[in-house]
Amino acid sequence: MERDVILREVGLRDGLQMVKSQFPTDAKKQWISAAVAAGMPEIEVCSFVPPHVVPQFSDHAEVVAHARTLADLTVSALVPNAKGAERGFQLGVDKLNFVLSASETHNQKNVRCSTEQSLERFEQVMEVKRSNPDYAKTSVGGGVSTALGCTMEGAIAPSRVMWLIEEYLKRGADEVGIADTVGYANPAQVKAVFQEAIRNFGDDTTIVAHFHDTRGLGLANALAALDAGCRVFDASLAGLGGCPFAPLATGNVVMEDLVFMLEAMGMRTGIDLDALVAIRDLLTTNLPDEPLHGMIAKASVPKGFVPASAALAAE
Amino acid sequence: MERDVILREVGLRDGLQMVKSQFPTDAKKQWISAAVAAGMPEIEVCSFVPPHVVPQFSDHAEVVAHARTLADLTVSALVPNAKGAERGFQLGVDKLNFVLSASETHNQKNVRCSTEQSLERFEQVMEVKRSNPDYAKTSVGGGVSTALGCTMEGAIAPSRVMWLIEEYLKRGADEVGIADTVGYANPAQVKAVFQEAIRNFGDDTTIVAHFHDTRGLGLANALAALDAGCRVFDASLAGLGGCPFAPLATGNVVMEDLVFMLEAMGMRTGIDLDALVAIRDLLTTNLPDEPLHGMIAKASVPKGFVPASAALAAE
Repeated sequence: MERDVILREVGLRDGLQMVKSQFPTDAKKQWISAAVAAGMPEIEVCSFVPPHVVPQFSDHAEVVAHARTLADLTVSALVPNAKGAERGFQLGVDKLNFVLSASETHNQKNVRCSTEQSLERFEQVMEVKRSNPDYAKTSVGGGVSTALGCTMEGAIAPSRVMWLIEEYLKRGADEVGIADTVGYANPAQVKAVFQEAIRNFGDDTTIVAHFHDTRGLGLANALAALDAGCRVFDASLAGLGGCPFAPLATGNVVMEDLVFMLEAMGMRTGIDLDALVAIRDLLTTNLPDEPLHGMIAKASVPKGFVPASAALAAE
Repeated sequence: MERDVILREVGLRDGLQMVKSQFPTDAKKQWISAAVAAGMPEIEVCSFVPPHVVPQFSDHAEVVAHARTLADLTVSALVPNAKGAERGFQLGVDKLNFVLSASETHNQKNVRCSTEQSLERFEQVMEVKRSNPDYAKTSVGGGVSTALGCTMEGAIAPSRVMWLIEEYLKRGADEVGIADTVGYANPAQVKAVFQEAIRNFGDDTTIVAHFHDTRGLGLANALAALDAGCRVFDASLAGLGGCPFAPLATGNVVMEDLVFMLEAMGMRTGIDLDALVAIRDLLTTNLPDEPLHGMIAKASVPKGFVPASAALAAE
């Protein structure tokens, strides 16, 4: 089906990496299957980090293998370095997302090297890709974390974000992401940064938006990015997620509420909201101590609501 | 000081009318004083309804008298009819806000008459105003509730909202409000309706926005109205509020989060965010069973954050 906006579920990675208990492998597989059945086009299913660093992803091979059986799904995964990428290429993931921080301090805390060194690591990922023709089918995205502010450094210059995007593209990134990792952004800033990124790079490159709802502006920021022309958004079921090095920065944008906003605005996500909301039961069962966010799951849709995807599909 | 946006605290009326316990009169007075000290330019301090209908407002005379002692505050109150308005004029309130619903069904439930009959009641309010020269100093606003959707009727035609605004203005309303009483609106709809209202009436008339956060879109809708040119917004401390005839429609837009969004965007509200957030303690003390909403009170402002009001005042 036609989609006006592509949504990417990051709860299985950005969400579960913050969760202390081990989320059962079967439940991850159920979540992925249910999300795809609801119409989710892309899911970041894990991170290729060593199991002793994040035990949550020690089942990555089984999770990826399951995800790859599902039609119409772009299976993606996070990679911090060439070693993780090698694993991702071998497992046949559709897309690998590399990440570095615009904030030097955050980059040091997160991956223990400078941002320049992270760019070298990205180069190494691309070398691994070029080393084996089988790896060509996997695309590689470059994410800029703390692009709109950092809990340690404060404001981040937009010129630095543009520079990092350019460096990613020079090295062959297939798409780039701008992430408000700690929920610092405001809509005016988002609109300006996304307009500049889309003006500079948007003709050839997809620009992905990744917002957190830490200060309540997640959906307003998504709206501002949408206004700027952005059409690809990360979000997570029930707002699961955060950043281990940014205290209180919990909470990705709630996927269900984002779907509601977009569909109500006439933008087709291709996602069935009822089916999406129903997946929350999996979280309630398997993460009984985790707070679940989201308003539409509580309030339900307006009387007479017809989502854009259904209205336009019926035409 | 210069303000780019005027915010109006409605928690004492829209919020407290939903609260079952009696909020102490002294605490109301403290709240009003603290809000004014924080820079709040306008507060709806009560509703002039008979005490047996809403006992919460039986102390209206004392509350209004206190509010009137505060410099730089526009003291407003809700009125359902001419009798309530007479009381408001007598007490010297700066502004009376009349309200009717775009939804016939909601109007019947809320004030037990048709929308046309509500317009006649508004005419009677204006007759009372004209009956006494002392009343001339009190302005009268006309609010359109359920203007963006109704839990009982579903969608509301924008043409009906425009018609009601026109009827209000014909009868001498000084300003008009468009209210998403039940949290049904989406940003595309908000932008379209506010653009139309501002195009039709904005040259001579202030258009006020009143949003609820029932489905999580409160701030995104405020952003859309701002984009359309709206510069006056209702909100309530800690998101207190709702509608007695709209189940689950609890929650005005959170004032603190709205101030944060606007100030971060460079729009001066004239409100000191820290001082505003500190007032929440009054709610915690006096409404221990009421859920308090809002993200900025939990997460605090970004590192290095300079609100527009402070930045521009320092120039």
